[in-house]
Amino acid sequence: MDTLPSPEQIRDAAARIAPHARVTPVLRSAALDALVGAELYFKCEHLQRGGAFKFRGACNAVWALSDEQAAHGVVTHSSGNHGNALALAAATRGIAAHVVVPEGAVRAKVEAIERAGAILHRCAPNQMAREAMAAEVQRATGAIMVHPYADTRVMAGQGTLALELLQQVDGLSALITPIGGGGLASGVAIAAHAIDPALSLFGAEPQGADDAAQSLAQHARVTTVVPDTVCDGLRALVGERNLDALRTHRVDVITVSDAETIAAMQLLWSELKQVVEVSSATVLAAILKQRERFAGHRVGVVLTGGNVDLGALPW
Amino acid sequence: MDTLPSPEQIRDAAARIAPHARVTPVLRSAALDALVGAELYFKCEHLQRGGAFKFRGACNAVWALSDEQAAHGVVTHSSGNHGNALALAAATRGIAAHVVVPEGAVRAKVEAIERAGAILHRCAPNQMAREAMAAEVQRATGAIMVHPYADTRVMAGQGTLALELLQQVDGLSALITPIGGGGLASGVAIAAHAIDPALSLFGAEPQGADDAAQSLAQHARVTTVVPDTVCDGLRALVGERNLDALRTHRVDVITVSDAETIAAMQLLWSELKQVVEVSSATVLAAILKQRERFAGHRVGVVLTGGNVDLGALPW
Repeated sequence: MDTLPSPEQIRDAAARIAPHARVTPVLRSAALDALVGAELYFKCEHLQRGGAFKFRGACNAVWALSDEQAAHGVVTHSSGNHGNALALAAATRGIAAHVVVPEGAVRAKVEAIERAGAILHRCAPNQMAREAMAAEVQRATGAIMVHPYADTRVMAGQGTLALELLQQVDGLSALITPIGGGGLASGVAIAAHAIDPALSLFGAEPQGADDAAQSLAQHARVTTVVPDTVCDGLRALVGERNLDALRTHRVDVITVSDAETIAAMQLLWSELKQVVEVSSATVLAAILKQRERFAGHRVGVVLTGGNVDLGALPW
Repeated sequence: MDTLPSPEQIRDAAARIAPHARVTPVLRSAALDALVGAELYFKCEHLQRGGAFKFRGACNAVWALSDEQAAHGVVTHSSGNHGNALALAAATRGIAAHVVVPEGAVRAKVEAIERAGAILHRCAPNQMAREAMAAEVQRATGAIMVHPYADTRVMAGQGTLALELLQQVDGLSALITPIGGGGLASGVAIAAHAIDPALSLFGAEPQGADDAAQSLAQHARVTTVVPDTVCDGLRALVGERNLDALRTHRVDVITVSDAETIAAMQLLWSELKQVVEVSSATVLAAILKQRERFAGHRVGVVLTGGNVDLGALPW
């Protein structure tokens, strides 16, 4: 279930989710363009249903199920946006969603998952506990597992974002997304290169969770990184297949400190006037850090989510 | 110079500012729609150049000048967004902008005015001192006065927003804007009713600066209100002609407390994911306060600005 999707599977996903997902706007800022010396096209997935791009993958997974499969519901483990997305997607098909939530997840995100009608299962905040609890729910209910990123249907759904962006903006020469588990980056890479193989692809990763950067440098998946970053959406280890896609499509990973990301988040709020969550700001932080590589380019910049505790801002 | 603009003058203004102003997007939120039981179409003027609708009026005023007039530059008094807008508009024509800024204005706004290249003139924070200083600059430089709201060209420019919104969204039955000096509300009322005389028009006013509501109730312009509200953009007294327009077009003014406005601002940030300034949130506060009047309607909601000190949020 976690082989990489083909471009055709991504196009199928786009048709499958069209009745449910939003076509998100692309916004620009003269001030941010001037700061970088580039044309930045911000793809606003924080304005997607559920406030994150995750709805695309979850929706594709839910609607790709047969009726018989769907009847048992779906299950996942997620610290936030994917859980919420799966709950919303399940609701569009009228089936149950079980979401395993680690202790310490962002309050606003957990509340949103509950509001979306999911059945919550709490667990310890580590990968092993998450997977064990999800497997347990799967055994007990027969629910279909929809992994946050190591899932063909999910990667295909996330890839639809690139099809949409390349339709909205002509002549992009570069594209950058954040990298957590790599579901977004891999889906986007496959979709974007199917349309324009010359497009330069970049990923932004927190220095405190830089397993993708390390894995690419060492030509082997590094699983020893203990995430330590304010970017709650990017703490997952990159998946095996996802990493393959990053390698095949020569995705250049730029790592950024939490301080750089927080400064970029403030710029996105004050200049672009968009409420994006901290993980989403890694992309602008990476562009500002390696400005000379982006200057003169027309860059697609994916803003991944906007689910924020307004009472607990990171500055 | 402060007669009300005709619908034709507003259409002329739309053509005049088209090369310089942005067509701002309209955004929606399923959560906010559900909260009100209406379809809310948020017109995002915080994404206009300069971060506020004010650029429309300032730009129209600047480009309506003859070359001879323009050579002397322009002057205004403004606590923030209009000053910034006039500076930006003057820059599009390569002429000088003098801006009289009262002490105590929002720091982020004053900095933006300076960045936009205006010549600043500071004065005491009251209407009389503002007008005296502006008159003095006018005498000394020959600059043309562009009043923030009691100016035909400015009202016409603000009205272009309604033309644009009614082109973007079909079948609106109601439209609401904040009310400060009334430049926006009067321009929008004239433009909107020229297209659809059946449209219900609403204004939102802070209880601590409710001179428009009092003036309409007493059938005479009330000038004794001493503004006391967190909404820094809505402290001006409504102009004489602006009030005429509110009366003629039966604009229904709803007053809201600062607490209601701040709560609405948080909803706009967390649900619509837009960084809007506190004055902009009066409209959602008014809708939530008199929900039953908006339920079932398709409502245009004007978000007027997004210039915020992120270090000094009102909650």
